[in-house]
Amino acid sequence: EGTQAPQPAGSPQGLLAQARGLFQVGDTYIVVETADAVVLIDQHAFHERILYYMLEHRLQSAPLERQRLLMPLPLNLSRAARELALSQREALLEFGFELEPFGPDGSLALTAAPKYSLARKHDEMIIELCEELAQGRRPGDFSTMRKSLVEMVACKAAIKAHDPLSPEQIKDLLRLGETVPHTFTCPHGRPTTYRLAFTDLEKVFHRR
Amino acid sequence: EGTQAPQPAGSPQGLLAQARGLFQVGDTYIVVETADAVVLIDQHAFHERILYYMLEHRLQSAPLERQRLLMPLPLNLSRAARELALSQREALLEFGFELEPFGPDGSLALTAAPKYSLARKHDEMIIELCEELAQGRRPGDFSTMRKSLVEMVACKAAIKAHDPLSPEQIKDLLRLGETVPHTFTCPHGRPTTYRLAFTDLEKVFHRR
Ligand SMILES: [Zn+2]
Ligand SMILES: [Zn+2]
Repeated sequence: EGTQAPQPAGSPQGLLAQARGLFQVGDTYIVVETADAVVLIDQHAFHERILYYMLEHRLQSAPLERQRLLMPLPLNLSRAARELALSQREALLEFGFELEPFGPDGSLALTAAPKYSLARKHDEMIIELCEELAQGRRPGDFSTMRKSLVEMVACKAAIKAHDPLSPEQIKDLLRLGETVPHTFTCPHGRPTTYRLAFTDLEKVFHRR
Repeated sequence: EGTQAPQPAGSPQGLLAQARGLFQVGDTYIVVETADAVVLIDQHAFHERILYYMLEHRLQSAPLERQRLLMPLPLNLSRAARELALSQREALLEFGFELEPFGPDGSLALTAAPKYSLARKHDEMIIELCEELAQGRRPGDFSTMRKSLVEMVACKAAIKAHDPLSPEQIKDLLRLGETVPHTFTCPHGRPTTYRLAFTDLEKVFHRR
């Protein structure tokens, strides 16, 4: 224990390698036991942070990789959301969502979906995205829309709170976290990890 | 979740029935996941509290049950500790430790040991007890000695910090805790449990 380099407080870099035990509590937090601490991770905020970083950085170079769906997924959108989706087809394509007119009534279908890891069904996600964007503030210019989309896609695509995770999914998430810097706060500055050092616990239990 | 009666903060009563997950961290703390909290338990302080209560209450009615050892265990005691042991044979017998002269040099052996659950070897424990009592404050009267013994036996017999526990041992300990009231502080008033409610965690992670 004495030879281990100290970790910056709250940084989950290298956590998986340090992990002696990995648990999930409340279907919402990941608990990592290390040699000198218990680290609690807000699974949604942590995953959101990772996806936010990945989306933001990959978009700077090229549109995100997408894969064509075997069958177009028809989208049951409100009129406002459909209009928004149509006007933002180019932005959505950058994120890997390809929309095409479908059927005689002018409705839309999803024909290609992003390759990056998503927690949820692509059609559900794009519907939520478009409805929220249509209901919320005005679309504004393309770069504003892109920023909103980065935030919204990161949030929508991330594992939710109250989602039970298998031990493998927990490991995958920690592994993904290690590919991205500064995962200890989410895009909105909220902490994603909370480190309870054993020295802190000793104080809680009046051991020192 | 809404139907569950609230638990007094830090009370581990009924914890085992409430447990959705049971872990040990740092080989020192038990982590109990319930529907609405993560409860951390200092395994030593918690077990000590239980033993303290059991010893104190059983001694009021009768000496503790003991079992004769198949072979007497010779005790390698200092002169002072042997004298203390000899002068306190009656008190030690109440705790289930039976000492008898052994060998030509006037040394002592343990011939019977208490039946209550002990984490360690009886001969090691009685040696530590007698040496510490001999080194420490004066034995004083019988009731003072009995009080010191209750405290010392509870501490010595309890699971130590840094002892790895199997899942079965964790359950046994929680089950034992449910037979005894007020296990949430140790005999010295130190907390034995620390409840981190999910509503607290929501604040930590700025979820509210
Ligand atoms: Zn979110
Ligand atoms: Zn103790």
